[in-house]
Amino acid sequence: MPIAVLASGRGSNFLAIIEAIKRGECAANIEVFITDNPQAKAIDIAKANRIPAEIIDRKKIPDRVKFDLEIKKALDKYEVQLVVLAGYMRIIVSRELLDAYKYRIINIHPSLLPAFKGSTHAQHEAFDYGCRVSGLTIHFVTDDVDGGPVIYQEAVDLGSCKTGDEVAELIIRHEHKAYPKIVDSFAKGKYEMRGKRVVYIPRKP
Amino acid sequence: MPIAVLASGRGSNFLAIIEAIKRGECAANIEVFITDNPQAKAIDIAKANRIPAEIIDRKKIPDRVKFDLEIKKALDKYEVQLVVLAGYMRIIVSRELLDAYKYRIINIHPSLLPAFKGSTHAQHEAFDYGCRVSGLTIHFVTDDVDGGPVIYQEAVDLGSCKTGDEVAELIIRHEHKAYPKIVDSFAKGKYEMRGKRVVYIPRKP
Repeated sequence: MPIAVLASGRGSNFLAIIEAIKRGECAANIEVFITDNPQAKAIDIAKANRIPAEIIDRKKIPDRVKFDLEIKKALDKYEVQLVVLAGYMRIIVSRELLDAYKYRIINIHPSLLPAFKGSTHAQHEAFDYGCRVSGLTIHFVTDDVDGGPVIYQEAVDLGSCKTGDEVAELIIRHEHKAYPKIVDSFAKGKYEMRGKRVVYIPRKP
Repeated sequence: MPIAVLASGRGSNFLAIIEAIKRGECAANIEVFITDNPQAKAIDIAKANRIPAEIIDRKKIPDRVKFDLEIKKALDKYEVQLVVLAGYMRIIVSRELLDAYKYRIINIHPSLLPAFKGSTHAQHEAFDYGCRVSGLTIHFVTDDVDGGPVIYQEAVDLGSCKTGDEVAELIIRHEHKAYPKIVDSFAKGKYEMRGKRVVYIPRKP
């Protein structure tokens, strides 16, 4: 299954997917890495793993719809079936991009949505709120930020965490295991909508 | 530890606490049961267990502050240390009641707050949202409805649930185990505030 990974920062989930592929646990091929940030450390990960890296500098294309259309061009060029956002910090606003890849763009959010929806520091907010339990959500990307249909959720017990940073570290460790697994599930079946609920249908052997 | 239980409906958590006390698993004594609803089935549970039942009919006292002061009178009369809301469907609005029993009124909510905060059908909303995980929260009652400090949270996997009703049944089963345990913990230690976070300090033996 040809996929694209998009990230804006260090790309730790990007690396987790690469490593799962190498171990044979994720039946995907990363055709292209795309970033909006020329300084993203994830670019080094792409280079080290000989994955084509497309840098579409957000500062050079201030118009957000035009920017998204550049992203779409890159995705089209590599003919990917799944677009995996992994710490991609730009909200997709282009209807054309969203429609072309409907139910084919996924994101991971470090909370049990709808809790801490739209937050860029959901782990710290969960700690400050006093939560005992938080977690992660993998969802389809729609025009409702962090509000797309839920593909997968995993609870994480915060009992041992003494700071928001500890919560963030704990949740990202769970992300690194969960995200490659869910990417793999796309290669082995399909997700269908039942109302707002997502149902997984494994491919018949 | 003398406690009061307040409920408006069938009182299944009320019954769960009574049964835990009988089994010796909850070191509390229910001094009084209070309801705002003369038709509440929970009244029968109180009678069957010889627990004094105070019926303060919400229809007879439309002024909500006055109503709360009647609740306070009943609580004061029985000299309770902890007030346990168990399906009590009236929002406490009286500053006098809230202040007199600050950090001594607890509630249970069938979601992982802040998700589905303020909802009276949080289980069905979680199902309709497509959540894979929901749960329950036990929290202190403040003037912020469902927004008081979190004492305890428990995640519940909704994987097997096919309807919102199934979610509700699954979560209430967890409530019946969790609520008596947390009531018991109040008898064996104390909860203190660290910012918005709640910390439990067991009593020294």
